[in-house]
Amino acid sequence: MTAAGEPPSHPLEVFRGRLISVEVWPTRYREIVRHPGSCAAVPLIRDDVLLVRQMREAVGEALLEIPAGTRDVPGEESGACAAREVLEETGHRAVHVEALGWLYASPGFLDERIDLFLVEVEPAGGPGESGIEVVRLPLLEAVDLAAEGGIRDAKSVAGLLLAARRRGSDRDA
Amino acid sequence: MTAAGEPPSHPLEVFRGRLISVEVWPTRYREIVRHPGSCAAVPLIRDDVLLVRQMREAVGEALLEIPAGTRDVPGEESGACAAREVLEETGHRAVHVEALGWLYASPGFLDERIDLFLVEVEPAGGPGESGIEVVRLPLLEAVDLAAEGGIRDAKSVAGLLLAARRRGSDRDA
Repeated sequence: MTAAGEPPSHPLEVFRGRLISVEVWPTRYREIVRHPGSCAAVPLIRDDVLLVRQMREAVGEALLEIPAGTRDVPGEESGACAAREVLEETGHRAVHVEALGWLYASPGFLDERIDLFLVEVEPAGGPGESGIEVVRLPLLEAVDLAAEGGIRDAKSVAGLLLAARRRGSDRDA
Repeated sequence: MTAAGEPPSHPLEVFRGRLISVEVWPTRYREIVRHPGSCAAVPLIRDDVLLVRQMREAVGEALLEIPAGTRDVPGEESGACAAREVLEETGHRAVHVEALGWLYASPGFLDERIDLFLVEVEPAGGPGESGIEVVRLPLLEAVDLAAEGGIRDAKSVAGLLLAARRRGSDRDA
């Protein structure tokens, strides 16, 4: 709970973890979660996209998502972060990286910013990450899946729809 | 920080606020934020959408978003929550509410689920909420704005693109 007694006039840090910290604003009451930010990529190989399915303990189920990660490497640019996550999670190397925009995950209480990229990839010979299943399907099918509820992660739904729009393929469908 | 000494085998609650709580999983280390969930609506009045601009303290800027709120009324269904938020924030009454799907805001560490609705509205005579600016524009312009970076909130970008797709208007643009 928040501090008892005289409230301080500045934000009060109530938790500092390895990933997030939480502060409480006592006067105009707010609970705010601080996060280092994320990078995410829509990895395209010709007209197909590579998605990853993995267990998400926070929600208690395995989800199909675009490759993504926390920006936890000091000094690493977000495009490089996205390319690294694609390589680690799918075993595919980025040959072209293009910014697709950035989003706040839940700006009412969380400062996490997600940088989105459209990444053209090629096989790099390696396997994907252990515990992660790679799913390759046509980008247009992935967009249909997102619209039908087969993809539940907000950044993935936004990223796939933005990528299809950028590619012009959504309009031609 | 996490508990020192012998780690317990079950999640450890490190913060419980009015909105969120935070737990730490000590064995397979995780920081997990629990949230009651949200409702959000794409409010349409003929071919126009109503967006709201308001200050978001967590990110330190005013953002243009679709109307949304926390599911903090016990027993209220999410469609009713979305219609209520539209009325409170825009002064417009829902005449038709249609589910558009639901999304996890950031499932790597946060369990917030956002229920999205497409809501047909009509003016209800009332003003919007204080501190909230209502912006009415064609849905297709809002989708362009989302693609160009004028809308940064993930649920708003996903919601607008899904709504345009549902309406078929994105394809005809």
